[in-house]
Amino acid sequence: MNVNLIKEFVAIVGKDQVFADEVDRQAYSYDAAVLMPQVPALVVMPETQEQLGKTVKLAYENGLPITVRGAGSNLSGAVIPSSADTVVILTNRLNRILEINEEDLYAVVEPGVITSVFAEAVSARGLFYPPDPGSQTISTIGGNVALNAGGLRGLKYGVTKDYLMGMDFFDCNGDLIKTGSRTVKCVTGYNLSGMMLASEGTLGVFSQIILKLVPPPKDSKAMMAVYDDIADASETVAAIIAAHILPCTLEILDKKCLTYIEAYTHAGLPVDAAAILLIEVDGSHAQAVEEDADKVIELCKKCGAKYINIAKDAAEKNKLWEARRNALPALARARPTTVLEDATVPRSKIPAMVAAVNRISEKYSLEIGTFGHAGDGNLHPTILCDRRNKEEFKRVEDAIDEIFDAALNLQGTLSGEHGIGIAKAKWMEKETNRATVNFSKKLRLALDPKYLFNAGKKIV
Amino acid sequence: MNVNLIKEFVAIVGKDQVFADEVDRQAYSYDAAVLMPQVPALVVMPETQEQLGKTVKLAYENGLPITVRGAGSNLSGAVIPSSADTVVILTNRLNRILEINEEDLYAVVEPGVITSVFAEAVSARGLFYPPDPGSQTISTIGGNVALNAGGLRGLKYGVTKDYLMGMDFFDCNGDLIKTGSRTVKCVTGYNLSGMMLASEGTLGVFSQIILKLVPPPKDSKAMMAVYDDIADASETVAAIIAAHILPCTLEILDKKCLTYIEAYTHAGLPVDAAAILLIEVDGSHAQAVEEDADKVIELCKKCGAKYINIAKDAAEKNKLWEARRNALPALARARPTTVLEDATVPRSKIPAMVAAVNRISEKYSLEIGTFGHAGDGNLHPTILCDRRNKEEFKRVEDAIDEIFDAALNLQGTLSGEHGIGIAKAKWMEKETNRATVNFSKKLRLALDPKYLFNAGKKIV
Repeated sequence: MNVNLIKEFVAIVGKDQVFADEVDRQAYSYDAAVLMPQVPALVVMPETQEQLGKTVKLAYENGLPITVRGAGSNLSGAVIPSSADTVVILTNRLNRILEINEEDLYAVVEPGVITSVFAEAVSARGLFYPPDPGSQTISTIGGNVALNAGGLRGLKYGVTKDYLMGMDFFDCNGDLIKTGSRTVKCVTGYNLSGMMLASEGTLGVFSQIILKLVPPPKDSKAMMAVYDDIADASETVAAIIAAHILPCTLEILDKKCLTYIEAYTHAGLPVDAAAILLIEVDGSHAQAVEEDADKVIELCKKCGAKYINIAKDAAEKNKLWEARRNALPALARARPTTVLEDATVPRSKIPAMVAAVNRISEKYSLEIGTFGHAGDGNLHPTILCDRRNKEEFKRVEDAIDEIFDAALNLQGTLSGEHGIGIAKAKWMEKETNRATVNFSKKLRLALDPKYLFNAGKKIV
Repeated sequence: MNVNLIKEFVAIVGKDQVFADEVDRQAYSYDAAVLMPQVPALVVMPETQEQLGKTVKLAYENGLPITVRGAGSNLSGAVIPSSADTVVILTNRLNRILEINEEDLYAVVEPGVITSVFAEAVSARGLFYPPDPGSQTISTIGGNVALNAGGLRGLKYGVTKDYLMGMDFFDCNGDLIKTGSRTVKCVTGYNLSGMMLASEGTLGVFSQIILKLVPPPKDSKAMMAVYDDIADASETVAAIIAAHILPCTLEILDKKCLTYIEAYTHAGLPVDAAAILLIEVDGSHAQAVEEDADKVIELCKKCGAKYINIAKDAAEKNKLWEARRNALPALARARPTTVLEDATVPRSKIPAMVAAVNRISEKYSLEIGTFGHAGDGNLHPTILCDRRNKEEFKRVEDAIDEIFDAALNLQGTLSGEHGIGIAKAKWMEKETNRATVNFSKKLRLALDPKYLFNAGKKIV
């Protein structure tokens, strides 16, 4: 990049917050997706919202593509720099929790605040911020909003969308746009924060975010139900919902996942099982939680669970949850490349989706382990492979195509929580139609006429 | 309107669904706002989504302003035709409930479905659709989404925004745009349904809407708490939230409201009280509801409630709720014109807002009764006047200006649920800033380049 332009960025944020050396830029060339890296031209780390706005303005005025980055934990390439002349803008210094308001049940944060740090701060004030994406110990609120991050609690507590009350963001002119409110109800102006949600960095740059907080549950009960037939596990999920119980966690892991996790953790998992469900019910009254737990246990048995381990305290629950937490790390040990997919279906279609994934894994001779959020239909078929093996990776890409087809045929959607990024942009028309893609492009170009905000992502 | 053009509309929807006579057009010249009517050029009532799309396309191609109308119950003028050449498109025939899916907890409806009809159909299937705007027995789901309608259950159950999963809508080309999903989690494409939410008919025309359903509460308990000091009532609201109880209803009515309601209903309301709270707690377990109710009663007493009437059954609860249901009708009897305001503040600011409204009513020598959703800060100061009295109405308009100022100074917002419409468009910049208004206009004109979708509303 032109040395004078670099000086202008330095003038805004200071020389210690501008990274021009190649060895630094390399560190920001990739995210958590299995895609080719792209080294950016420059990396800039503003320290204040004002510096952020000026950085955006300077980059945009000079026609530089912009990719905003928090932790870079995105799984679809949304944070891979668009091109060699991209400026990566880091939000990590914008990590202030500006306000936690207990009376009015909201908080205001800068986009670089780490999700679990925020959740803990809220918890320390006696409140609850439920969205818990798998990346929460590193991912940022800004990233969560840009992707409408989900997590395990989606069925009962909702996802980031359900907690976004408003925001300030910078538009392509570096002007600050204000939307939403600190009030529960607000219909003033357009729902611009709704529009920015899940926009994957393509419509503007977040400056600060208003989030809803809720009272915390006071009690919970966790269990693991073990099945000889994954269909019985799926049936249990349906039965629990039909009984109008919304567990705060309702996760499924298949045999392949269990085998790999046990090989990694030696925790005594039932590796001969076809599948397990991890279920947690919670609520504000201990007796109600007990009643729900009893009902869930009854339903598990009725639907064919071989046995159920009930955690008698938090320590036992954590032991059970180890399985879920270790699913991805355990699978990732198997082969050099781990492709984590995210196609989502209505929960009643989980049996069909699981069957489809198994059929696809056989058809393409691939190892695929499936775990995920059975309660909300957001499964994660995980393909274990080596992308350096081009023949195998071609089979992987074809398998992914078929996984998407299967999800769409079951009235599902391409992505439940990981985003479209680079990886899924080409399927957008298949799920919607040409008019929707064109409309989305029109929207995008209206708000980003030079096509600089994360070009090549989301809608192409 | 040109007779040949009318024939083209007739060719789409049939002659019985096109209203050109003035006496018919007059009926669609106004909504529930206290604003000047505008007789449209034509009124068209499509019967199918396909007819709707063709109607939109024909109107847009011919440069005709379009105002979409469900019940016309909007309180801010959002459904008053923009101009004399406007085509009003009615959604009333698009009233099919297309799907209620119990397994996957969603429904799909056409925009003209009446909210309470939908809620009852959902209830008959053992599920719950909570948003209950005051207009629910006449307003439509399409109108609710266009305004992000609220209601009494907002604090605990959320508002329309929290139930909108996706939609199909027609853009200015009459093309069908598809967004969202039948799944709990979806980040595919832009959050276009979020963008359309609260857009007040200015960005497109809804064709069908996907709504989330939840399990119904199994038990509830209702009560009326009576206060000698409205500050004690406000303090009670704060105490209930601080105790982490979210009642499904938490309404306030002031002395003036009580006086008018009693004069209307003779129900034995405490007209010597300064204010009352109507509180309902609900949940899935009877004992938990009992415990919450006991806690609430204790807090009411602690905060100075003179006494509390607890409803022992549904009939008694309905009797108590009569007061709330009759607030607006009772106030509306007082004078020829009833101006129902909607400025909303964080709930901790309710005492200050109530004090401000009282100060304003004295300053401008106006009668203002205040009732509303104390739990979420969405109060409805209601000004009783006669708009034919120009001197008085000038004082009313100045008072409204000050009410908005007061709300904004308390970190509130112009509108909690009634929308911006015509009535509040000029205050948009005050709450946000010039850049936000310009950004919003840019968005609007990108999606509606001829400025035909409900011109003069929302953002001007």
